[in-house]
Amino acid sequence: MISQDTIVALATASGAGAIAILRISGADAITIAASVFQSVSGKDITRQKSHTLHLGHIQDDTKIYDQVLLSLFKGPNSYTGENTVEISCHGSVYIQQQIIQLLLRKGCRMANAGEFTLRAFLNGKLDLSQAEAVADLIASDNEASHQIAMQQMRGGFSNEIARLREELLNFASLIELELDFAEEDVEFADRTQFFELLSRIEFVLKRLIDSFAVGNVIKNGIPVAIVGEPNVGKSTLLNALLNEERAIVSDIAGTTRDTIEDELVISGIGFRFIDTAGIRETEDVVESIGIRKTFEKIEQAQVVVYLFDASQFAVEGSGIRVEIEKIKNQFPLKPLLIIGNKADKLTDAQKAQAVNDIPQLLLVSAKENSGVEDLKEKLLSFVNTGALRNNETIVTNTRHYDSLIKALEEIQKVQFGMRSGISADLLAIDIRQALYHFGEITGSVSNDELLGNIFANFCIGK
Amino acid sequence: MISQDTIVALATASGAGAIAILRISGADAITIAASVFQSVSGKDITRQKSHTLHLGHIQDDTKIYDQVLLSLFKGPNSYTGENTVEISCHGSVYIQQQIIQLLLRKGCRMANAGEFTLRAFLNGKLDLSQAEAVADLIASDNEASHQIAMQQMRGGFSNEIARLREELLNFASLIELELDFAEEDVEFADRTQFFELLSRIEFVLKRLIDSFAVGNVIKNGIPVAIVGEPNVGKSTLLNALLNEERAIVSDIAGTTRDTIEDELVISGIGFRFIDTAGIRETEDVVESIGIRKTFEKIEQAQVVVYLFDASQFAVEGSGIRVEIEKIKNQFPLKPLLIIGNKADKLTDAQKAQAVNDIPQLLLVSAKENSGVEDLKEKLLSFVNTGALRNNETIVTNTRHYDSLIKALEEIQKVQFGMRSGISADLLAIDIRQALYHFGEITGSVSNDELLGNIFANFCIGK
Repeated sequence: MISQDTIVALATASGAGAIAILRISGADAITIAASVFQSVSGKDITRQKSHTLHLGHIQDDTKIYDQVLLSLFKGPNSYTGENTVEISCHGSVYIQQQIIQLLLRKGCRMANAGEFTLRAFLNGKLDLSQAEAVADLIASDNEASHQIAMQQMRGGFSNEIARLREELLNFASLIELELDFAEEDVEFADRTQFFELLSRIEFVLKRLIDSFAVGNVIKNGIPVAIVGEPNVGKSTLLNALLNEERAIVSDIAGTTRDTIEDELVISGIGFRFIDTAGIRETEDVVESIGIRKTFEKIEQAQVVVYLFDASQFAVEGSGIRVEIEKIKNQFPLKPLLIIGNKADKLTDAQKAQAVNDIPQLLLVSAKENSGVEDLKEKLLSFVNTGALRNNETIVTNTRHYDSLIKALEEIQKVQFGMRSGISADLLAIDIRQALYHFGEITGSVSNDELLGNIFANFCIGK
Repeated sequence: MISQDTIVALATASGAGAIAILRISGADAITIAASVFQSVSGKDITRQKSHTLHLGHIQDDTKIYDQVLLSLFKGPNSYTGENTVEISCHGSVYIQQQIIQLLLRKGCRMANAGEFTLRAFLNGKLDLSQAEAVADLIASDNEASHQIAMQQMRGGFSNEIARLREELLNFASLIELELDFAEEDVEFADRTQFFELLSRIEFVLKRLIDSFAVGNVIKNGIPVAIVGEPNVGKSTLLNALLNEERAIVSDIAGTTRDTIEDELVISGIGFRFIDTAGIRETEDVVESIGIRKTFEKIEQAQVVVYLFDASQFAVEGSGIRVEIEKIKNQFPLKPLLIIGNKADKLTDAQKAQAVNDIPQLLLVSAKENSGVEDLKEKLLSFVNTGALRNNETIVTNTRHYDSLIKALEEIQKVQFGMRSGISADLLAIDIRQALYHFGEITGSVSNDELLGNIFANFCIGK
């Protein structure tokens, strides 16, 4: 399915900047670029070395389009493995379009989403899980997702899978060899060693599969439902949580960050806060629809924060305790964090009383920024970041997760088959199947539809 | 005022793309980059040639930030004239920020707006009008503004000014030499030749000053007021004008264009359409405020389009003629285009009648797309694109325009002075003053405040 034509796309963010990069890849990349490029020193770029930079003009017979810097990469020493040229032009959208149109007239075609990385994969520059990590890396917006994508792109995950696959492949070959000597009833594959290998593989697969829980959370953020009445200080609390992070970012002029009011990164882990209308008991029908909606939102969340105004505890204490019990009964397995805000308004005696009444209570004052650090720690405690800290491989990709689950099933079939003494030919089928699922992850087994699905999610230009 | 520290900024458009470019410039650019860069082939980048590309990782003691491609430029052979490194990293905003923070920790500081180009100017890589053209080029969004900026950036304007300046300087020197021999009453400067030169300079200055009218229009677009009642088909007409242009743009995937409903480029010239409420006569006070507002908008426009529903001409003909007369009386010098829309609903006889009643009438049918090309041609006819077609220097910059006006005043003073036979020392003062204004344009005369104003309008990273 590898196409030999030469593709072009804008590789930098769309819109106007100081400069923009247009990327051309394919057998004719350099000759096409040469046909529209005039080096200031009169050099013929088709005769220049790989990995060199050249100043000149993009022009055709009738006009000069721009002064540009041209980067030259000769295949296979390029990202795609093909001849590649990157044109660094002035960042006007008009100029980007004009040069792309010129290149299309000269024989390039527009690249599809992810096509540069697809070609890198097809040319063996990276395996499929590494290719997927490129997209994850570009999408990464916090330390944890960045770290995992970096590790995966550098082959951490692939290596772990490849090691297991190779060991399994060795045994598979031995067992298949036995089939050729079926009438002689020999065993080339040591069954004890094989059992031991299967256990090891099972252990690793289970660890990887388990890691998906944290991996998924790191990739997508942890949904946290905040249950609380409008006047208990929800937004002040969110601001107190956000402020510190914002200060870090705003230090850097020229790099802007979209302010997402309800998203927050704590120690590299993203939390998404879902505001709810609270669950205060009421006769009003409209209000009880509100309660149902709150419960629906809690359902989707992984953590629930119950927030109340601690200064009102003396008056509303029993109502608050009822609400807390209601949440606990409705969602017995969901982690619940109980926060009493506005603690600055309480005397020490009142604080002691509140904590006595609600043992798990955390008292904070968003206004005076006290207790906020404790809150962050509590939120973090719901994420098992051990694997992250220990630099273990973490699975973040649903496709990998599915393949791992399927591989595990096959491995367990093999284990069961061996215990029940089934024949080598039946064993071999299950082993091949397990190997197949390992291969899906790294892309040694792939098909056009799978590749189409994966690379369609890439951005254009990568 | 040139500062020797090493600056860094994001040079590509902000936001996420496949890749992003961080630009570092200054004496320590290469050593700072080397301190965070590990080449995959183990090369020491401080010992590599200029204009080479290197694959490797950005890292510090504790972590790997990204796999990047590093471009190396050794001063003076760089855009700024200083040592320069460009880091092509993955386009995640998080990664951009992390690497910039790392570089700041290693001794870079954030670049100010336009600081790379300011350094290029201060290091003599380009003159001031060329530097200004860089910003114009980045802002160019149509063929005409692009062409003028390109020409200016390549030195077209500077060369024209520099030639005049040099000739004038020669005469100035001769005249000042006369001052040294004042008592001997000699004339080193041939007065006839000098008169001839002054006339030539006056002619060129006037041409350049005149070109500002078209230059300004090209740079900012031509404001066109559309006068017409709500139901005469204003938006259908605008869409008919826009459609063709849109089709061109949407051919290119990956390059997006902000849809500005009321801005339109015809043959490379931008037109900005200003909608008005019409000027229909009414008793209503609120409505007559509407008419006053319409007149205010017409005041700001360079061209007025009066649009009416031609199918209503039989009924409303006299009212329409009154309105047209009113606009003509109010704005006798403003070009007026009279358009009868919905011509598809008219019989040929009705069409003939309408054109007979209103001689300058252009009948169009936005719905059937007839007459739209004629309309475009008429709009274009208001722009004197002769200078553009003939590749003449066109002044687009108000600062240049002001300096040219001042230079012309001084030249005319000199001419007057010579005719009235004033002394050489007084002549010399006026000539010096004219030379000063020439120098302002190219930046051979400049000061911190002027430079500050110019480069503050640049984007960060350029």
